[in-house]
Amino acid sequence: MRPAPAHVHQDRLWSSLTELAGFGRFHDSASDLYGVSRPALTPPDVEARQWLLRQMTDVGLDVWTDAVGNLFGRYDGTDPGIPPLMIGSHVDSVPQGGMFDGALGVLAAMEVIRALREAGHSLRRSVVVAVFTEEEGSRFGTDMLGSAVAAGRIPLEQALALRDADGVTLGEALEKTGFAGHGSVLAPPYAYLEVHIEQGPILSSAGVDIGLPTGVQAISWHELTVTGKAAHAGATPAHLRVDAAKTATRLMAALFEYAAARQDGGLMMTVGRMRLEPGVTNIVPRLASFTVDLRAPDDGLVTDAEAHLSGLVEREGQDGPAAALRRLARTQPVPFSEPLRRLVADVAGTLGYSRRSLISGAGHDAQEMAALCPSAMIFVPGLYDGISHTPREYSDPAACHKATNLLAHVVTALCGDDDRSALA
Amino acid sequence: MRPAPAHVHQDRLWSSLTELAGFGRFHDSASDLYGVSRPALTPPDVEARQWLLRQMTDVGLDVWTDAVGNLFGRYDGTDPGIPPLMIGSHVDSVPQGGMFDGALGVLAAMEVIRALREAGHSLRRSVVVAVFTEEEGSRFGTDMLGSAVAAGRIPLEQALALRDADGVTLGEALEKTGFAGHGSVLAPPYAYLEVHIEQGPILSSAGVDIGLPTGVQAISWHELTVTGKAAHAGATPAHLRVDAAKTATRLMAALFEYAAARQDGGLMMTVGRMRLEPGVTNIVPRLASFTVDLRAPDDGLVTDAEAHLSGLVEREGQDGPAAALRRLARTQPVPFSEPLRRLVADVAGTLGYSRRSLISGAGHDAQEMAALCPSAMIFVPGLYDGISHTPREYSDPAACHKATNLLAHVVTALCGDDDRSALA
Repeated sequence: MRPAPAHVHQDRLWSSLTELAGFGRFHDSASDLYGVSRPALTPPDVEARQWLLRQMTDVGLDVWTDAVGNLFGRYDGTDPGIPPLMIGSHVDSVPQGGMFDGALGVLAAMEVIRALREAGHSLRRSVVVAVFTEEEGSRFGTDMLGSAVAAGRIPLEQALALRDADGVTLGEALEKTGFAGHGSVLAPPYAYLEVHIEQGPILSSAGVDIGLPTGVQAISWHELTVTGKAAHAGATPAHLRVDAAKTATRLMAALFEYAAARQDGGLMMTVGRMRLEPGVTNIVPRLASFTVDLRAPDDGLVTDAEAHLSGLVEREGQDGPAAALRRLARTQPVPFSEPLRRLVADVAGTLGYSRRSLISGAGHDAQEMAALCPSAMIFVPGLYDGISHTPREYSDPAACHKATNLLAHVVTALCGDDDRSALA
Repeated sequence: MRPAPAHVHQDRLWSSLTELAGFGRFHDSASDLYGVSRPALTPPDVEARQWLLRQMTDVGLDVWTDAVGNLFGRYDGTDPGIPPLMIGSHVDSVPQGGMFDGALGVLAAMEVIRALREAGHSLRRSVVVAVFTEEEGSRFGTDMLGSAVAAGRIPLEQALALRDADGVTLGEALEKTGFAGHGSVLAPPYAYLEVHIEQGPILSSAGVDIGLPTGVQAISWHELTVTGKAAHAGATPAHLRVDAAKTATRLMAALFEYAAARQDGGLMMTVGRMRLEPGVTNIVPRLASFTVDLRAPDDGLVTDAEAHLSGLVEREGQDGPAAALRRLARTQPVPFSEPLRRLVADVAGTLGYSRRSLISGAGHDAQEMAALCPSAMIFVPGLYDGISHTPREYSDPAACHKATNLLAHVVTALCGDDDRSALA
């Protein structure tokens, strides 16, 4: 028999979300809302991690960090010989982002632990709360970095050598902040489960309580750099210019056109960063660079788009500025565990929560963990078309509670006495 | 009879150029050259001004500043009742610029004063060395700012209220640095003469010693801002995006195409600055803004281009992101004084200097002074197609000396005993 479910407190969960949102809090004058700016291992992220460490210790978890700064806390089960269930997410944010992305998954896991302890449950299987480093890729350029190292996809040395915009390596940032621990690749957990906001419009427009992603789409990030020659804007005739901005504009226009023709097939393209150097009104730029974020549920669409991008770049530089392409990140589409999804759906059914399947548009730590163990996610609907990565990001307390309550029941099902059959 | 010409020292001129280039000096790793970063009233510009003040005082000039920070030094003539001749330029630079733009005109003027004093000339007419504030417009967004205020085109209060990227006003910067003096609109000088590098390829390819600009072309600066909605790059389907970068790209592409079709007619367009906000790889930008620098010898070409730009902006925002246009600067084409140009050409002839007429592609303080008095310029050829606004900007010592020597002879002609007929 399963033990009686632990009682998940909506108010306590919401308070902890609000408290964590205080680290990196900023006021966005455009929307008059408060958001969160907490890129990985910046001072606000370090403060958030220290706060989390105290929370973990207070609730009785055994806490450690690995060599890439991933933070873990174990709630011991009665049988130390079986692999633990892992639940969690990340607490780094994009610059000028919102308070739910990542944070909700970590705090849902913490609330589940609190509820389990309060209920006096003695689980057979240990539960590990995981807080992964640099999920956003905003600072060191590669997303899902901590979980990718933990899953063995990215070598530790490569991760530690990545540099931020100021030239600081991840390794240096970890040493400086005291979050460099030992070990990198995880011993496979029994399973991995992550609560996360949807970051899209599908669940709210469908009016359902819970989303159950079938998997994560393919993601490809590139930086394209065009090198021209700086020149005076007024005294340099057009035929003598080597204008990096003009070439970059033509390339961006070609890419947007390519993506528009394939958007109904599921391809999405974003140019999120662009810079011109020296960046002065009356100087023809010597350098233009911009990022290209390509995604699709179908890996072939992304591969085709990458080939198109490479072709565009190769055709430059023959009689104009030189263009160069640098790959920042590439992940394949990842299907989540069907047995685990089925279990989550069944438990949601017993709780009376409406639900639907969807593909995850964003990348998540769960896709890295899927290489180690059966993995799945629980998506929470968001208001305003699920807008995310901005201060407008919002999911209401009841929606966050339902996902956390569902997680608590699934944890109980997977770690209680009859867990041997749960993922059979 | 004209007095014997003063002796202009090539080495002393070159040493002073090198010394002034030490303020704001930086190493450009791309070219392995040293350049100058000295935007108006930044610490390097303040140090350069303090150095110049000492130089002016040492050479016996009466020194003062006006309310917009223009710095003047008067070499007294014997007849205080007649208006002075003004010679000079500016010492602010663009970020990551070169050591000749502006600096050469100021130091040529200083060398002429030194040479006149050494020669023991007692001129009838006073000579005022002028150093104008924020000629580049790199910091406060409006170029020829100091001379435009001195000439009465831009009201003082409007100039003082302009803000830099950090929100600091020109008025605050002047108060803080101690360069806020009194008075704004100048009493008309007798004439104004400015030595300046060409900043273009015409003189060096023609192989002449000196350029005599017929005038300055029309210049128009705008900032175009597109306001969309920030959204997650992976979870926001194309039909729900309000993508500021995509719209900005389409607008820039349309503008480059428009300009390319008119470049043979003399239109030049530059996009020198661009920024995306929040500027993160995996966020659809909520804001995109870029500058447009339009120039042509024919004012009609610029007016047409501005109308095209306005039209493009107005057509946006009907079913996409809103676009807005802000005019940063607009100057009409300015013809220089024909009698003054003829005098300079005649003196150049007596010195055996080869010369040619051309239009100035860049804006200059002389175009503002032309509203007050007969004004003209002496252009110096530059190497590497006259490239400017970069560390590669270079004019050799002999070329700088010829222009300065010519200036000395013209000053003597305009300020000596027979100056009454010089500009008749």
